[in-house]
Amino acid sequence: MKTAQVRIAILGATGYGGMELLRYLRLHPAATVAAVSSEASAGQPLAAAIPHLAGTELILQSAADVVARDDYQVAFCALPNGQAMRLAPALLERGCTVIDLSADFRLKDVGVFSQFYQLEHAAPQLLPQAVYGIPELYREQIAAARLIANPGCFPTSALLALAPLLRAGLIDPQGIIVDSKTGVSGAGRTVKDTMYLLSEANEDVMGYKIGTHRHTPEMEQQLTEAGGSEAVITFVPHLIPMTRGIYTTAYAELRRDFATADLLEIYRQTYAGSPFVHVLDEKTLPHTKWCAGSNRAFLTARVDPRTHRVTTLSVIDNLGKGMAGQAVQNMNIIHGFPETDGLDCTAVYP
Amino acid sequence: MKTAQVRIAILGATGYGGMELLRYLRLHPAATVAAVSSEASAGQPLAAAIPHLAGTELILQSAADVVARDDYQVAFCALPNGQAMRLAPALLERGCTVIDLSADFRLKDVGVFSQFYQLEHAAPQLLPQAVYGIPELYREQIAAARLIANPGCFPTSALLALAPLLRAGLIDPQGIIVDSKTGVSGAGRTVKDTMYLLSEANEDVMGYKIGTHRHTPEMEQQLTEAGGSEAVITFVPHLIPMTRGIYTTAYAELRRDFATADLLEIYRQTYAGSPFVHVLDEKTLPHTKWCAGSNRAFLTARVDPRTHRVTTLSVIDNLGKGMAGQAVQNMNIIHGFPETDGLDCTAVYP
Amino acid sequence: MKTAQVRIAILGATGYGGMELLRYLRLHPAATVAAVSSEASAGQPLAAAIPHLAGTELILQSAADVVARDDYQVAFCALPNGQAMRLAPALLERGCTVIDLSADFRLKDVGVFSQFYQLEHAAPQLLPQAVYGIPELYREQIAAARLIANPGCFPTSALLALAPLLRAGLIDPQGIIVDSKTGVSGAGRTVKDTMYLLSEANEDVMGYKIGTHRHTPEMEQQLTEAGGSEAVITFVPHLIPMTRGIYTTAYAELRRDFATADLLEIYRQTYAGSPFVHVLDEKTLPHTKWCAGSNRAFLTARVDPRTHRVTTLSVIDNLGKGMAGQAVQNMNIIHGFPETDGLDCTAVYP
Amino acid sequence: MKTAQVRIAILGATGYGGMELLRYLRLHPAATVAAVSSEASAGQPLAAAIPHLAGTELILQSAADVVARDDYQVAFCALPNGQAMRLAPALLERGCTVIDLSADFRLKDVGVFSQFYQLEHAAPQLLPQAVYGIPELYREQIAAARLIANPGCFPTSALLALAPLLRAGLIDPQGIIVDSKTGVSGAGRTVKDTMYLLSEANEDVMGYKIGTHRHTPEMEQQLTEAGGSEAVITFVPHLIPMTRGIYTTAYAELRRDFATADLLEIYRQTYAGSPFVHVLDEKTLPHTKWCAGSNRAFLTARVDPRTHRVTTLSVIDNLGKGMAGQAVQNMNIIHGFPETDGLDCTAVYP
Repeated sequence: MKTAQVRIAILGATGYGGMELLRYLRLHPAATVAAVSSEASAGQPLAAAIPHLAGTELILQSAADVVARDDYQVAFCALPNGQAMRLAPALLERGCTVIDLSADFRLKDVGVFSQFYQLEHAAPQLLPQAVYGIPELYREQIAAARLIANPGCFPTSALLALAPLLRAGLIDPQGIIVDSKTGVSGAGRTVKDTMYLLSEANEDVMGYKIGTHRHTPEMEQQLTEAGGSEAVITFVPHLIPMTRGIYTTAYAELRRDFATADLLEIYRQTYAGSPFVHVLDEKTLPHTKWCAGSNRAFLTARVDPRTHRVTTLSVIDNLGKGMAGQAVQNMNIIHGFPETDGLDCTAVYP
Repeated sequence: MKTAQVRIAILGATGYGGMELLRYLRLHPAATVAAVSSEASAGQPLAAAIPHLAGTELILQSAADVVARDDYQVAFCALPNGQAMRLAPALLERGCTVIDLSADFRLKDVGVFSQFYQLEHAAPQLLPQAVYGIPELYREQIAAARLIANPGCFPTSALLALAPLLRAGLIDPQGIIVDSKTGVSGAGRTVKDTMYLLSEANEDVMGYKIGTHRHTPEMEQQLTEAGGSEAVITFVPHLIPMTRGIYTTAYAELRRDFATADLLEIYRQTYAGSPFVHVLDEKTLPHTKWCAGSNRAFLTARVDPRTHRVTTLSVIDNLGKGMAGQAVQNMNIIHGFPETDGLDCTAVYP
Repeated sequence: MKTAQVRIAILGATGYGGMELLRYLRLHPAATVAAVSSEASAGQPLAAAIPHLAGTELILQSAADVVARDDYQVAFCALPNGQAMRLAPALLERGCTVIDLSADFRLKDVGVFSQFYQLEHAAPQLLPQAVYGIPELYREQIAAARLIANPGCFPTSALLALAPLLRAGLIDPQGIIVDSKTGVSGAGRTVKDTMYLLSEANEDVMGYKIGTHRHTPEMEQQLTEAGGSEAVITFVPHLIPMTRGIYTTAYAELRRDFATADLLEIYRQTYAGSPFVHVLDEKTLPHTKWCAGSNRAFLTARVDPRTHRVTTLSVIDNLGKGMAGQAVQNMNIIHGFPETDGLDCTAVYP
Repeated sequence: MKTAQVRIAILGATGYGGMELLRYLRLHPAATVAAVSSEASAGQPLAAAIPHLAGTELILQSAADVVARDDYQVAFCALPNGQAMRLAPALLERGCTVIDLSADFRLKDVGVFSQFYQLEHAAPQLLPQAVYGIPELYREQIAAARLIANPGCFPTSALLALAPLLRAGLIDPQGIIVDSKTGVSGAGRTVKDTMYLLSEANEDVMGYKIGTHRHTPEMEQQLTEAGGSEAVITFVPHLIPMTRGIYTTAYAELRRDFATADLLEIYRQTYAGSPFVHVLDEKTLPHTKWCAGSNRAFLTARVDPRTHRVTTLSVIDNLGKGMAGQAVQNMNIIHGFPETDGLDCTAVYP
């Protein structure tokens, strides 16, 4: 029984982010997808462009044609970087909630944005109102927002583990190392490089963009906010031979003596009212597979008294909690739906 | 809003079949899982034994203890072969619907059962009432049944493609070859053999049980029923390096000239009212990935006038339509729920 | 100690075929790679273009520049279809042995070639002298050849299993079905389609080019030759989520009663002097992994008296016996080296 | 032409280490495998137990029977921990070179050994003469040794990257973090745990043994030796869904300002005469795939002036340079063969 319906547009429906939004929203009791865009397949039925969606009646339109419609209340932008910032002003103006899955509204500093994304920002006036959308850390701001900067997948995995420790003053914001392992789907459905071919990426690990990855300033911005002083991190992402999932191992220096049990208690308090973040006990370590196809995150940490360091271990599905699932969660909060609507599924395991 | 609730027991909740039942039933608007069994973990919370189910409050019991309860109306048996036939009589007697995911009630001939499963049948008196549970082919019998023999994964994939052609008298029941490729999860969560280790199964293909696989008599029984005369098939399953999915390529000799278009039309008519079986057109070929994590099947066929043969191509998720999804679908039909309840999700793609 | 050296050019050194030739030739006691071509990377050191070849001193040249050299005796053409037929005449004229890994010289009928490859043949006058290069079936003709049509990977796997049975008159050339499962590397290092991305091809099976694959006429040509009457086959290739390896399951109708043991004896006689083809006994089934990185093939067959059919099961590494390994083997035979030179390695297992 | 032959025994020939030794030794011009052991398959032909080795004539014996022979000069022990220390005394006594692939002789401190391996050491008197076998770091000691402690796979990958920086006094031995990603084959051919099943390990990442892994004291022992003062590290291994390969990302604090170029120059000097260790330049990052099936290592590093840290990136094949390849390399050095004998192959790529 769908009451209090919200109608939705998905800009960029045929990429992995768009497909995943469609999958979650199908399970949502109060959401109806009204419009879907794709430049390459405009005019085609969605189910012709994406055969596994057989049964969907939606017809793909150009983004411009979708923006010109006025029969939806929420627009998810699952477009390449640089496009949402051009579409958002009009959408917001007519009262739409805009949830942007790209990087366009994540960085508050347009100079840093330009440096890392090689783009001039088209809507800097919107940045102050954009809320960084990790509900477990910023639920109140999100509830009041109309424009969500849906976080990057790596930052989501790292911030869930690190922000509570910085907020509690337990770790040194200058001594953080973030080592992430990601599935290949984070690169999207792209054919621009041989590196994502199964023959190349299978049975391979590659670190990449050492010290230069675009998610570095995003993490530093939020870690600085959490810790109250400037955070400088080393971030190394690694591509590994799987499709979905991010495993982030972060290392930080303790500011004072602390036991693993105390630290896990801080996690438990932070995530007490958060149905998607599961804090694992001292005997359990996470697996990315526990999140696959879901909006869940699992995390834990271990304090090593020998080295005075803490190691945090956190996992998400990069397309779930790291992208589309979190976007739907943000919509639920803004529009007053139960936070788990559309998202109350466990992992597809195995 | 869950009304007209049905309460459910899952016997064998910690194997892949049980886990998958739990995943689908969580999405079901009218089903509540009341009891779960595991011999190895009896007494433990389900969420301790299966950490990715965090949030579940259920406690595992022994199968005997679950059978001794009387607070559920449907029992799914996801146990090794030979166990459901011992538990079913008591469950049926007190009015339970029994949906057995094992092979115990699939073969009508106990002699064939004993030969292929090396087990004496403990409840042959129940075989006449057991209904072979492929809803798209036997929906009416299922609606009237209390005991469902949930089909094997390979037979499901093959029968969806072949039964309509035999019913229509288009192909020779003596000339059928079924070549299936399956993910490794069909073997269950077993540690009995090195062959399922990632190091062994990854980057490998192996055909196995050539001419002796237990699903051969099951397929022949149902193909014989569909065609009205004895079917004799060659069945070769292959283990390939993936977790989920079955791709079945079947080859059959045409009894008369027929075009691909005509054949697809027969498929479309057969599956017109079946929301989970998608018939692909002459330009589209199926992918197992289109079913992953869902109860969907995709199929098509190609007639080759050069060879007077038809090749059918059908895909399912072996744990979905090939197992737990189909089991839930059978429950829906028996208990008068919409057929898609709990199952109305698209594939987790990619 | 390298005596009786032969100097070698590899045209197309940076694709998977070229790389694999380089790998095998490095192990060859009597071969020296003198020239390597790549249009995209001409002028670069080979080890810069292909970093895992660190230590190689070779410099890439354009194919034209390599052809213009005269300091080698063997040219391997590992180029896209349609190029070797333009380069071969000049190479042969000055006395070079030409071993072509493309399809250019495989089909004797230029009409069929044009139909399947959408190319007009540029050197039809060379077709009569081109020898189809499966040493185990055509060793004598190869020994006398200067132009080798190195076979396709699927045909190699199928012909090793089927040709001996046709030669012995055991099976019906009209009733053969070839169902092959291949790793993705057969598609080359291509970025033209999303289907070869890890995110798409992983956890997926897809049959493709049903009834229209270019290797169909190649197989039929050779099966017709083997059986002495026209062979018409059904061939269905399937892409599965692995990098290397082909598993071919072929089904044929028996012409007379025959036991598995008799059939295996025919295999053993056929391959008695062939170090790379291993006939498995009645209890053993092949694995593609047993060939990975090697020039080996494993095969066996099972007769089913119930259906009067034989199922053959054969495995190769598509880049080894299915491509570069076989090419080196052909060179060895032509130039009088031991057949195992450069190829005497076992699989990289696991 | 095999002259100056050395005869070899492999104790534990049917595990992954043993198989890999057999693969490399087959390519060795001066080595003959004379004896192979397996308790489970004693009496069987090796090629029956390991079908992909078809062509080998060796017969498996028990380890005791192999030790009782006296017709070999080198014994490779590829046995579970705790066995080589019982066999080595007798082998050494009669003049054999012993190269132990287990952990038995790696730790100089028997107390630490007992603590981490839960074993009392059976031959502590041999520890002083055991040489830790990374040729690129300890070539001279190896040349003079008769007992080699072949290093662990993780330590090999980490030490190649870190030891030169500690020797040069560039990094702080107290501030090192080692984050390793390994293929599953490191766990051996074991069926003791579901975690190595393809269905479980595929599409999954799991960190494990955080702060307690047995390779931690091994790394600390050698890093302490390299730096001249006590090294204390954080080591986190991660199991990822591939068969072979280790990617180690290590993080260390700089002791003084240093540029990436300077650091790479130290690597180049350290590994100038080492054919298997390839130092990548400032623009190139390593891939595990570049080592697959070979004894090669690739490494590089990046200095981050923002954080005053260095990130090192090193890759090996865990069964190659991380195990059997390195063992053969050690034998070559001890017995005066060219260091590349049997090992002069490039990666099996892709």
